[in-house]
Amino acid sequence: MSKTGTIYGVGLGPGDPDLMSVRSHRLITNAKHVAFFRKAGRKGQARAIVDGMLPETAIEFPMEYPVTTEISVHDPRYNEALSAFYEEVTQHLIDLANSGEDVVVLCEGDPFFYGSFMHIYARVRDVVPTHVVPAITGMSGAWTATEAPITWGDDVLTVLMGTLDEEKLTRHMADTDALVVMKIGSNYDKVIRALKASNRYDEAWLVQFATMQKQSVKKLSETTDHGTPYFSIIVVHGQGRRP
Amino acid sequence: MSKTGTIYGVGLGPGDPDLMSVRSHRLITNAKHVAFFRKAGRKGQARAIVDGMLPETAIEFPMEYPVTTEISVHDPRYNEALSAFYEEVTQHLIDLANSGEDVVVLCEGDPFFYGSFMHIYARVRDVVPTHVVPAITGMSGAWTATEAPITWGDDVLTVLMGTLDEEKLTRHMADTDALVVMKIGSNYDKVIRALKASNRYDEAWLVQFATMQKQSVKKLSETTDHGTPYFSIIVVHGQGRRP
Ligand SMILES: C[S@@+](CC[C@H](N)C(=O)[O-])C[C@H]1O[C@@H](n2cnc3c(N)ncnc32)[C@H](O)[C@@H]1O
Ligand SMILES: C[S@@+](CC[C@H](N)C(=O)[O-])C[C@H]1O[C@@H](n2cnc3c(N)ncnc32)[C@H](O)[C@@H]1O
Repeated sequence: MSKTGTIYGVGLGPGDPDLMSVRSHRLITNAKHVAFFRKAGRKGQARAIVDGMLPETAIEFPMEYPVTTEISVHDPRYNEALSAFYEEVTQHLIDLANSGEDVVVLCEGDPFFYGSFMHIYARVRDVVPTHVVPAITGMSGAWTATEAPITWGDDVLTVLMGTLDEEKLTRHMADTDALVVMKIGSNYDKVIRALKASNRYDEAWLVQFATMQKQSVKKLSETTDHGTPYFSIIVVHGQGRRP
Repeated sequence: MSKTGTIYGVGLGPGDPDLMSVRSHRLITNAKHVAFFRKAGRKGQARAIVDGMLPETAIEFPMEYPVTTEISVHDPRYNEALSAFYEEVTQHLIDLANSGEDVVVLCEGDPFFYGSFMHIYARVRDVVPTHVVPAITGMSGAWTATEAPITWGDDVLTVLMGTLDEEKLTRHMADTDALVVMKIGSNYDKVIRALKASNRYDEAWLVQFATMQKQSVKKLSETTDHGTPYFSIIVVHGQGRRP
């Protein structure tokens, strides 16, 4: 019987391929099987980052989300559809590993930091060998793009998702030194209201597509747009001790 | 007149050289001048990470801290001594850049995330060209070592320094889903008391020397030690939505 293959969760970093780790780079440029999430009909951001890096012989396995923003996350059908989808793609990855093949699963940013990879990982980790390669997070890419340190001394840093309710957002924004807000998209207006209510709006920066070709970095108060794309992060810098 | 050189703040990642970015790797293996912080009499962790990677001709500039833990951070002499030290080393880096030389400043983890590099950066950014290369943080290395995702769904993540006072530590620990505590060292007992008071102690992991050869990963409740080294991170995982 052949040796069982390994499922690699490979972090790609924030977007610029030059910012992926030496290990991720090596695993990707030698990959035989490459799996990645995408929305049906799209190329997928993770796949786009590795353009030109995959061996010609690599076998690609796009994992297309059945739902993303069409159904509310509070509708029970949302969880059912996603759950069936994760079971199905996971079974394919396990079959590949059981037939002796290694599989590279491409992950935007760091796989264990709000990543979809964890839904695969939770289902395969007790079944076949796994290995996770950490990576530069989108937020590190974002604060580096603002050209200022995010935290100094003993600043408190809080990371919030725009999907939280307004009261919770406001409370946490008011009770931290440095702040990162992710998953903004359709929650943009709510996030802005919470930033204003917590008195953090004037210090906030909006970074879109950090480290990517179309990167944009602005003071939030200077943007005139009424929304922001999925790849957006809001950053408020800490002001800690400075010898 | 010669072209002005650039000061590069180069993030090394959590410790394993295989986890530095392709860009950091390239800058380091081609460096002409390499600067790094260290405690007097020590080799320095940043310098140790790049062992065997520097060109033979590289000129090294160790920047030795005048004080670290000997004087209390609340003593005014602490800030004075550090401040004079930063001015002095910074002037040397500026002189190098003005003479046309590029300088690589080695930074543990991500330079803009609680890094000492920012004290250099604040003093040089308006004087000579600078470029900062983000990196995998120590905390990404630490949660990856626990083999479990740090955050899911809309978990709140809070990052705390062990140097904060006990009341503030306790309050923030109680009001978050996922938690990271850094700079523990001599604050170990205080951090443990705060974890217990906020009811997070039983879920907490202690990761020492994440991604390094001497890495250790334990449930905090299963450690029998009465302290922990400087390179230690406490991690409490979030328990968010799981389709
Ligand atoms: C599902 S989370 C994945 C986070 C990822 N695992 C990481 O480590 O950054 C998706 C969110 O990450 C943020 N994001 C990730 N990379 C980004 C980038 N390069 N620029 C802006 N936002 C980014 C956006 O806020 C987006 O809504
Ligand atoms: C001055 S901060 C520097 C943080 C660094 N810039 C980063 O991005 O992780 C020093 C603290 O980082 C943490 N740290 C950094 N790397 C670590 C590692 N590999 N293992 C454990 N702790 C680490 C420790 O808590 C240490 O006290």
